[in-house]
Formats: sequence, C-alpha cells, structure tokens
Amino acid sequence: MTLRDDGAATLEWLASYLESVRERPVLSRVEPGAIRAALPERAPEAPEPFAAVLRDLDEVLMPGLTHWQSPRYFAYFPSTGSDPGILAELLAAGLNQVGILWRTSPALQELEEVTLAWLADLVGLPAGLHGHLEDTASSGLVTALAAARAAAPGRRVVVCSEHTHSSTAKAARLLELELRTVPGDDAFAMRPDLVDLTDACALVATIGTTSSTAIDPVPPLADRCEAEGVWLHVDAAYAGSAAVCPELRPLFAGWERGDSIGINPHKWLLTPMDCSVFLTRRPDDLRRAFSLVPEYLRVDEDVVSLSEYAVPLGRRFRALKLWAVLRCHGREGLQAVIREHVRLAALFEEWVRAEPGWELCAPRPFSLVCFRRDGTDDENEALLERVNGTGEAFLSHTRLGGRFVLRLAIGNARTTEEDVRVAWDVLRREAG
Amino acid sequence: MTLRDDGAATLEWLASYLESVRERPVLSRVEPGAIRAALPERAPEAPEPFAAVLRDLDEVLMPGLTHWQSPRYFAYFPSTGSDPGILAELLAAGLNQVGILWRTSPALQELEEVTLAWLADLVGLPAGLHGHLEDTASSGLVTALAAARAAAPGRRVVVCSEHTHSSTAKAARLLELELRTVPGDDAFAMRPDLVDLTDACALVATIGTTSSTAIDPVPPLADRCEAEGVWLHVDAAYAGSAAVCPELRPLFAGWERGDSIGINPHKWLLTPMDCSVFLTRRPDDLRRAFSLVPEYLRVDEDVVSLSEYAVPLGRRFRALKLWAVLRCHGREGLQAVIREHVRLAALFEEWVRAEPGWELCAPRPFSLVCFRRDGTDDENEALLERVNGTGEAFLSHTRLGGRFVLRLAIGNARTTEEDVRVAWDVLRREAG
Repeated sequence: MTLRDDGAATLEWLASYLESVRERPVLSRVEPGAIRAALPERAPEAPEPFAAVLRDLDEVLMPGLTHWQSPRYFAYFPSTGSDPGILAELLAAGLNQVGILWRTSPALQELEEVTLAWLADLVGLPAGLHGHLEDTASSGLVTALAAARAAAPGRRVVVCSEHTHSSTAKAARLLELELRTVPGDDAFAMRPDLVDLTDACALVATIGTTSSTAIDPVPPLADRCEAEGVWLHVDAAYAGSAAVCPELRPLFAGWERGDSIGINPHKWLLTPMDCSVFLTRRPDDLRRAFSLVPEYLRVDEDVVSLSEYAVPLGRRFRALKLWAVLRCHGREGLQAVIREHVRLAALFEEWVRAEPGWELCAPRPFSLVCFRRDGTDDENEALLERVNGTGEAFLSHTRLGGRFVLRLAIGNARTTEEDVRVAWDVLRREAG
Repeated sequence: MTLRDDGAATLEWLASYLESVRERPVLSRVEPGAIRAALPERAPEAPEPFAAVLRDLDEVLMPGLTHWQSPRYFAYFPSTGSDPGILAELLAAGLNQVGILWRTSPALQELEEVTLAWLADLVGLPAGLHGHLEDTASSGLVTALAAARAAAPGRRVVVCSEHTHSSTAKAARLLELELRTVPGDDAFAMRPDLVDLTDACALVATIGTTSSTAIDPVPPLADRCEAEGVWLHVDAAYAGSAAVCPELRPLFAGWERGDSIGINPHKWLLTPMDCSVFLTRRPDDLRRAFSLVPEYLRVDEDVVSLSEYAVPLGRRFRALKLWAVLRCHGREGLQAVIREHVRLAALFEEWVRAEPGWELCAPRPFSLVCFRRDGTDDENEALLERVNGTGEAFLSHTRLGGRFVLRLAIGNARTTEEDVRVAWDVLRREAG
C-alpha cells in the first residue's frame, strides 16, 4: 500500500467512472438485500490490497449505486461533485484536521469563516453574517430552532407552510416544539394572511420548496416576524445557490432579513455531499443554545470556536471543498452552470406545455419542472416507474393539490440539452 | 482542469506532506485572524486552476494547520487518516452518493449496515445490532438521548458521571433533559452506589473518559438500568476501537448490555475524520423518535432507510472509508496498531514513574498517560505551553481532583518509540 500507487489507480478508476457514467442505468436495479448478501460476513483477518477495494467496487457495489453523477439524474434535487470539490475532499482526508477548538486547526476555522463570507457575497447577502458549515439542512434546522427556542423562552410553536420540507417537522419534534402549518396558495407558497404567530418562537420560510420550488413571500413574513419578535429562518437549501445570478435575485427578495439562512452547495453549487451552509445575524443566540466548554478544552484564547454554534464538537475540513469550488469555477463559472440549468428547465417546460396530453402543475422559478400526463394518479405513477425502469433517466414525484405529479429537476453540471431531450423522449415513449 | 492531471498533482502534494509531517511544528503558531487576513475578501470572478489551491495550501494555509497526522501529536485523542481511508474518501466524493432513501443508493445503505456488523464482530459485540454512522459522538448522544426520552415519557433526567464528556450535557440541554451528575471514585470512575435513577430516562456510562480514560463500572450500572427501565448508553468513542484486541476485552465487561454504544473509528481506528459508529439493540425506539416520511420521499419499498434513525436526511458514502480501513488493515493489522500504542503508553508511564519530580495522576488502561511535574498548577500549565511552543510535540491537559494534569495520548499510526522518547526529552528539558 502506497498512497502514490494506490492513489493513481483510484484516480484512474474514478476518471473512467465519470467518463462513462452517462451509459449506466441511473437508478439502481438491485433488490433489497442483494448488496448485503454479496459481501462477506466478517472483516478479513489479514490485510488486503487496496486493489481489492477497487475490484469490489466494480464487481459487488456498482449495481447498487444510483448514479447521482449521471447527467440523466433528474430526481429529487440533483447534485454535482465537480473535480475541484472531489480533489479537495482527498486533501481534507489526507490532512485529517479535526476542528474542536480554534487552536486544533486555525486554518480550518478561519477558512470556513472566509469561505462562507465569500459565499454570502456571491449570493448578494450583506457582509458581517456569522457562517458555519453543517452536514445537512436537517441539522441546520435543529441549530436554527434550538437558537430560536432559547431566544424566546416559553414560546413553543414553529410556524411553517404545508409545503415546508419535513426537516422542519423533524427538528421541531426533537426540540419538542409544536408545528403550526399554514396553507399554501395556488402556487404552493405560504399564505401570509393565514399566519398566526401566537406563542411562536420561529417561522420557517422556504425559497424553493422541495416539492415544487415554490417561494414563500418573505417580505411580509419578515414584517410579521420582526413585529412579533419571532426568529425567521429562510430555508434556501436548493435554490440559494441560484442567487449567484443577479437576474434571479428578485426571487430572493427579503431573505437578508432572515435571522438565519440555509443554503446547500452540495445541491446546486458543484460541491460533493455533504456541505450545508448556515448563515445568521444572531450568532450569540446560537452560542446561548450550544456553547459549553469543559476543562479539558479550556485554553487561554480569545477566539470563539465554531463548535460553540451547533451540536458537533469535532468538525472536519469541510470548507476546503467549498473554497476549491468557488475558486476553480469562479463567480462566472458558477453563474454559467446555474443559467444553463434554468435554460434547460425552461426548455423542457416549453416542450410539456406544447404537447397535447401533458400538463404543467406548478410555476417554474428555477430548474424544476412539475408536470403530469393526462390520466389517473395510478397511471402517472406507473409511467414514472416505467421511465425509471428503462435506466435512461431517473425522475421523482410529489403530490400537489392532492394529485400525483412528476418532477424533473436539472442540477448536474454534465447535463446537456441532449440529455433532457432523451428524458422527454423516454417519457413520451413510455406514456404510449 | 482534469481530474487525472490535477489529481496526480494533488496526490503528489499529499504524499510529500505526509512524508515530511514529522518535521513540522505540531501545534500551529499563527495568531488568531492571521489566516483570515491572508485570504482575499472575495471569491474570484473567473475560474482559477486547481494548482492555485495547492499553492495556497503551502503558502497561506500551512502555518494555520495543527498537524493531526504528525507522529508527535499527543493531545486530546490523536487520530490517523490511514491511506485506505484517505483514498476511500476520494472515491466517496467522486461517486457523490446521497443516501436519502434506500433506492437513492442501495450500496451506500447496505455497505454501511454490513461494515458496522463487521465492526461489531471485530470488537466482540453480539450479532444483530442495528448500526449506522454519525458524524461525531456528539450527534450520537443526541440520537441516543432522543430515543431514550421517547421511550420513557415523563422521565426527564439523564444520569452521568462528573467525568462524562461534555457532549452528554450538550445533548441534554438540546433535549431539555436535566443532568444528574454522579461523583467519581479515586480512579475517576462513576460510583454506582451514588447513582439515583429517579425519573431518569437514560444513563451514560463511559469506557475511557476523555479526561483520563477512566472506565465506569458497566455491569452494576447495567443491572440498575435494567431493573428500572432506563436506557443505558455506553460511550466508548475513544476506547471502543481497542476492543479489537481480545486481551483488552475485560475492560469492556458488560458493554454489550448497553441499549446503545458509540465508537469513533476516526479516533483510534485509522479512519479519517469524520466517522462515528452508533450501535443499538433498540432501533425501533430510534425510529419512534426520528422517522418521518413526506410524500415526495414515499415509495413502494419494504426497506427502512437509515435516515429514519437520526437527524440528517441525506447521508454521504461515509461507510466506504471504514470498509476500506477494515479490509486493508485486517483484524491483525488493527490489533497490531492498538497493541503498539498501548505498549508505548506503558513505556512512557514507566519513564514517568521512575523519574524523580514527576507523578502519575490516573490509572492507564489504554494509551493515555495522565501525569504532572512536582510544583504548582501554574508551573505545570506554563510547562505545557513551553513544550507545545517548541513545536516538537503537542500535548493537552485536564484537571483531576482539582489539579492541573498533563495528558500524553498515543494514537497516531506513525508514532514510534523514538517519537515518544522525543516528547519525554522535551518535557524534561523544558521542566528545567
């Protein structure tokens, strides 16, 4: 085992994989338990060469992969692990920094602070926000709601829309907060006229819901939250990255008034899983909820460690990949990717609109198209399964207004117009 | 930018770094803010080559690194990112799997299950436990205590020792549980005769505390927990890896009776940060606390997704590195590393014991030696600062019985007897 030799083989394996990933069936076709059954029951006694790991990636694990790196992955929200992000993860693992206190890796902490300031600037948010990275938006919701709860003792209600991501409900359950759900309007956005903030510590507004990328009306919600002292969390996990494009900024009106904001570069900003940005103008409230320094971590330093702002004590060098992505794509490169994805989604939307027998089911502010075929829910569900079964594309679904709706989301940097065309061809073919 | 070319340069950079890391000052010497000040205020407009990232690693970030990979890192609990773990992280980033539902990556989920079964087997735990990975033990504590709270409605007390890691207090605060602290005995282990389980939902017992690697007496604590229906969480974050050696298993007596167990391979099992194992015989209680499946994730599958057992919805392919580590070191290789570290710690312990003017301050069951120089707390603290200031070694401290105590922990796979000798020489030299 040498890092150089095995590393070269690993790079070659990975480069070949990424060059050919378009040809693989996007959604894995294995039966539950098949991968487990193909693996030994115990770890080996003696060391094996790393080549055995690469071999088993091909021979055992490959059929169990759903290819998130495929340009024909259109389900949920696609993700791209771009080259700078991938190589930065190699560096992070090799440097193996563990951020507990500032002194255990000043570079880790300060690069994280700087990179998040860069990101805030790129998406048009004001300077001076506190920023740190979480693994996922779900953890970020726990952080936000815990701070909100600590900041408003006795107020135990979290307000969100019926279309808010389930991570809000999950965090509220963990924190024993009551969830008050506000109905959505015809565009699936929260209706501010129906918001009741009685006993509320927090309101979660979403810019780009998971279900349909609906946009809650942040300005009037921010007015209400300010007037009643309620923590406003803006969940822009998917869409936030799109704010690198000035022409899309109007969709983010008012988000700078959020007490906290979540953006996931591992969704739409070319960064491999996991990388979730948490920004806040109320860092002291986070510390009030989370800071706790035992003796064995007490040192004479006038620096606040990032571990005082959230659940984990130790943090890996996660900022390195976001820093590499922002540098190696640059503002222009990031904008180009977002613009192309929005263009492709608009194109697909036009194809659906123009085709008899098909229907658009929600507005399309970003790169997700919600649509369905004329017919029953069961027929649409069966159509989706047939399309995904071809292996040529992978889409997912949601339910809007009680109806089963197909979702085609564009977000992989390798996706071309031809890939979107293939998905549309498969949909029409399978629809019969 | 090509993955092959930039990847080769990255590998070369990393291999050179690891070959020379022993020569670098272990603890970073930068002033707070120095790294931040050396970085641009904004992301670049146009793309930069990846070579610029590597250059700035050397020129800007390097002084801000505390070298966790250094064989002379003896602070907190050391960690080793071994080659198989490093390369597996490269693969994980390149494959960019996102585990949300089972179908979004069957291989990710089933490899995680199998690898954790391997690990349980390696450390002598019974078959059939549910296992999943968390980022850190802090998050694992939240998972355990949330399940315990859900399993025992109305009981809001968490019992732990005064020496328990602060992550228990942090999780209890998040979950609004009251912390009841039990005094330790002369060996800093929890005194079972002083445990009061009234209104308790959980007790956290530690095998290998962070402060001194003390071992709470699990068998009598398990008896009490079983009798009173209290969730027993066994925190073996550091020490758990040592159970790969049968001769050390007696130190783990009774841990299989834990309702949940935490072990961090990113501490002492050659796996890069982050990788924290969570094992439980009560997975249904975890699901009761965390499971929540919205419509857009509902599919017709008879598989429980790992996201139903903890806070995060999406998970990265974290199991890949642990799988690679277990395979490429094998049971024998892992045992050899643990045994060598315990041998080196015993050796250092003997040196301290034999040297006039020095004192051992706690039993040494694993690879941590707690000791001090005759003199005041301030003198010992100043000694520690001088030693760390040399850059030749990095140690940390704790407080035991009210006194300032030095900690020398061995846990880096590159550490040799000569490295430990250097640390001891520096300590004696700086002690004057």
